Formats: sequence, structure tokens, C-alpha cells
Amino acid sequence: MKIYTVEKTLVSTNRIASMEHKPLLVVAEKPGGTPQVAVDPVGCKPGDWVLCVGSSAARDASGIKGYPSDLTIVGIIDKWEVNANGDTSS
Amino acid sequence: MKIYTVEKTLVSTNRIASMEHKPLLVVAEKPGGTPQVAVDPVGCKPGDWVLCVGSSAARDASGIKGYPSDLTIVGIIDKWEVNANGDTSS
Amino acid sequence: MKIYTVEKTLVSTNRIASMEHKPLLVVAEKPGGTPQVAVDPVGCKPGDWVLCVGSSAARDASGIKGYPSDLTIVGIIDKWEVNANGDTSS
Amino acid sequence: MKIYTVEKTLVSTNRIASMEHKPLLVVAEKPGGTPQVAVDPVGCKPGDWVLCVGSSAARDASGIKGYPSDLTIVGIIDKWEVNANGDTSS
Amino acid sequence: MKIYTVEKTLVSTNRIASMEHKPLLVVAEKPGGTPQVAVDPVGCKPGDWVLCVGSSAARDASGIKGYPSDLTIVGIIDKWEVNANGDTSS
Repeated sequence: MKIYTVEKTLVSTNRIASMEHKPLLVVAEKPGGTPQVAVDPVGCKPGDWVLCVGSSAARDASGIKGYPSDLTIVGIIDKWEVNANGDTSS
Repeated sequence: MKIYTVEKTLVSTNRIASMEHKPLLVVAEKPGGTPQVAVDPVGCKPGDWVLCVGSSAARDASGIKGYPSDLTIVGIIDKWEVNANGDTSS
Repeated sequence: MKIYTVEKTLVSTNRIASMEHKPLLVVAEKPGGTPQVAVDPVGCKPGDWVLCVGSSAARDASGIKGYPSDLTIVGIIDKWEVNANGDTSS
Repeated sequence: MKIYTVEKTLVSTNRIASMEHKPLLVVAEKPGGTPQVAVDPVGCKPGDWVLCVGSSAARDASGIKGYPSDLTIVGIIDKWEVNANGDTSS
Repeated sequence: MKIYTVEKTLVSTNRIASMEHKPLLVVAEKPGGTPQVAVDPVGCKPGDWVLCVGSSAARDASGIKGYPSDLTIVGIIDKWEVNANGDTSS
């Protein structure tokens, strides 16, 4: 799994029906990093450091079997710090 | 999931039968970036910023179970801007 | 999906039985780029620009359910040009 | 599969139910490298060099069928050394 | 699929039961490159250039359905040469 920081909500009104209304969050591997989008079955807020699963596991992890996701948040990390050089420590 | 901009339609007349006639769009992570090809079950147009799913989820997301795709558009992003340095904000 | 150019045939006489005798082609994302190998159910020739699918979709796309492939050609692109800088246009 | 070194335990109290209480370990491809998180069904300790499987295989390898993992430790490597330049030898 | 050169055997006595005793080989995309580990159902030796499959296809390609692998050797390449600059030709 990979560690991401939550940046903000993504709004996509015109989406395929099978995505239903699950919240979509913009995440990045470090603040300001390349944005990716994860499904959030946990209930996170911007600034949280979270654990995300990818590959086929991301589908069921959303809470709906076979959900169309390849990146799903599976937990909020209790303590995760990133220093100025981007080095992390928990 | 990843965020892409739609560039143009891809024409591939000689394709395997199971691809049927689903529209194929050339997309890139930023304008002029490395081109990839996504199946479009949503109905996008060049210039749209879209959300794409990969991995095994891309197959069913096309609207046909088990479709031969590893990158499928699942939504159009309501608001997504990229400044001159390629930094994005929604 | 990704776009590749077909470079040549790959010969692997000593292969696992489930690969049967499907043609294997060396492909690259640009001429002279890092070589990868794709299964060819379409019938391509060196110099063709082709569309390849990866992930679990590559297996059934070969024409044999569950075939041991993670990269399969699914179509020949009608028109795809790459200029001296490697920029592409169709 | 890829080779990682085990760095420390990751604590994520607020996690999706299907993750149960399987131990999560922070791992990296080299000491101080980009941290990733693997599920540990083997019982490893910091400093161990381990073999991890990804993709859909990571799910069942955890010991629970369909577990929400995309990176699972499948073995401790008997002997693996990394010199100052990061070159490895077993 | 990707092309690798076989470097050596990997010994991991403490491994999950479902890995059984299938041979594990350290492989790299070029001599001295980043080491990865592949399951070998073919019977290769150091110095062989081999074709490896990844993703979910790697599991059944091992010879055991659902085997915990994400990289499996599926064939030995008959002729593959790499010149001093790392350029390859078959």
C-alpha cells in the first residue's frame, strides 16, 4: 500500500452510474505532489495522512463489491510526519 | 484514479472483435504529455479534464463486463485548472 | 491503454505450455525505446503503431481465456506519426 | 516480486473493517527509500530483508482470501546485503 | 511482458506455505540493474535472457492456480544480446 496526504474533495457530477455517490478525494504522495484521486470509505479530511490500496483490492475495499476504483483509502495513519526535505517519520 | 486531459479521438479500424465500437480517446496527464488511450463510456470532448480508472476495475467500468480495457474514463471533472508550471487546482 | 511501435518477432522456443504458439512481438513506446513483449492476436508487422492493453484485461484479449499475458495488442492505429523530438500526432 | 527492507510498524487505528488487525509494516526498497506499507503474515522485524508480492496475488497471500492488500510480505530472505552504493548481493 | 536476465537463486526459508518450494530467481532488466524476484516454472540458469509475465497472469503461469506471484518466467529467449550501451538486439 502507499501513503498519501489528503488535499481536497473532487467534484465530478457527470460520472458513470456504478460510481454512485461515494466521496472522491484528491490525494498526493507529498504536499503539492502529483494529484491522484482516491475513493474514501473512511471519512477523511484535508491534511490527514492516509493509507491507500490499489490494484484489484481497491474495488471491494470501497465497501461495494467490484466498485470501479483502483485507489481506495483503507485507513487514517495515527502519526506521520514529513520534514522540510520530504523525509517522513512516524 | 488518475486525472487526464482529453486530446483527440483515436482511430483503430483493425481491432480485436471484443473491443466492439466503443470510442477510444487519446488522453495525457498534462497537455502535450505522454499520450495514453482510454475508453470513453461518458461522452467527453477534447479539452475536458477527466477521471480515469485503471487496473482490473477499468474492464467493467466501460459498461461491458470484462471489456478489454486497462484505462477507462469514469467521470468529467467539474472544475480543474492547470497553471503555466503545470500545477493544478480545482 | 498504451501506444507502441512493433519492432520484431521474439523467438522463445522453451516456453510454458499455456503460452501455446501465439506470436510474440517486441514492441517499444518509441523507436529504440525500452523493449517489451506483447502477444499479437491481430497480425501486425514491424513498423506498425499499435494499441496494447495491460493488466488482467491482457489475458482474455489474446483470444484465449486466462492466457498468460500482461500486454496484448488489441488494434493497429490507422494513423500515428512521431516527429524527430518524439512528439506524436495522429 | 520485489525486495524490501522492513523499517517499522505502522499504526492506523481508524481503518476499514475488512483489514481486521493484521500487522502493517513500513517497508522501503532501500534504507531511507520511499516508504510503502505491506501486510505481514510472516512475522518480521525491523531490519529484515523481505520478499513482497503485489498485484492481485497480494490479497490471498495475506492468509485471508480477498484481503484488501496490494503489497504482502511472503518471505524473509536468508541473506541479502546492500553496500554503500546501494548495490545488493546475496 | 518484460525481458530480464537471470542473476542467481534467492533463498527464503521462512516463507508463507502457499509459496511451496517453487524456485525463486533474482532477475534484472539489465546486468546489475534493480533486482526483482521471479518464480521459475521453466528451469533457467544464471545468464539466461528470459520473458516474464506480471499482473494477475503471473499467478496461474507458475503452474499452480492462484499461486502468490506477480512475476513469473514464461520462457527462455532463444537469442538476445545487449551491447555496451545497454541497447539490445535479438
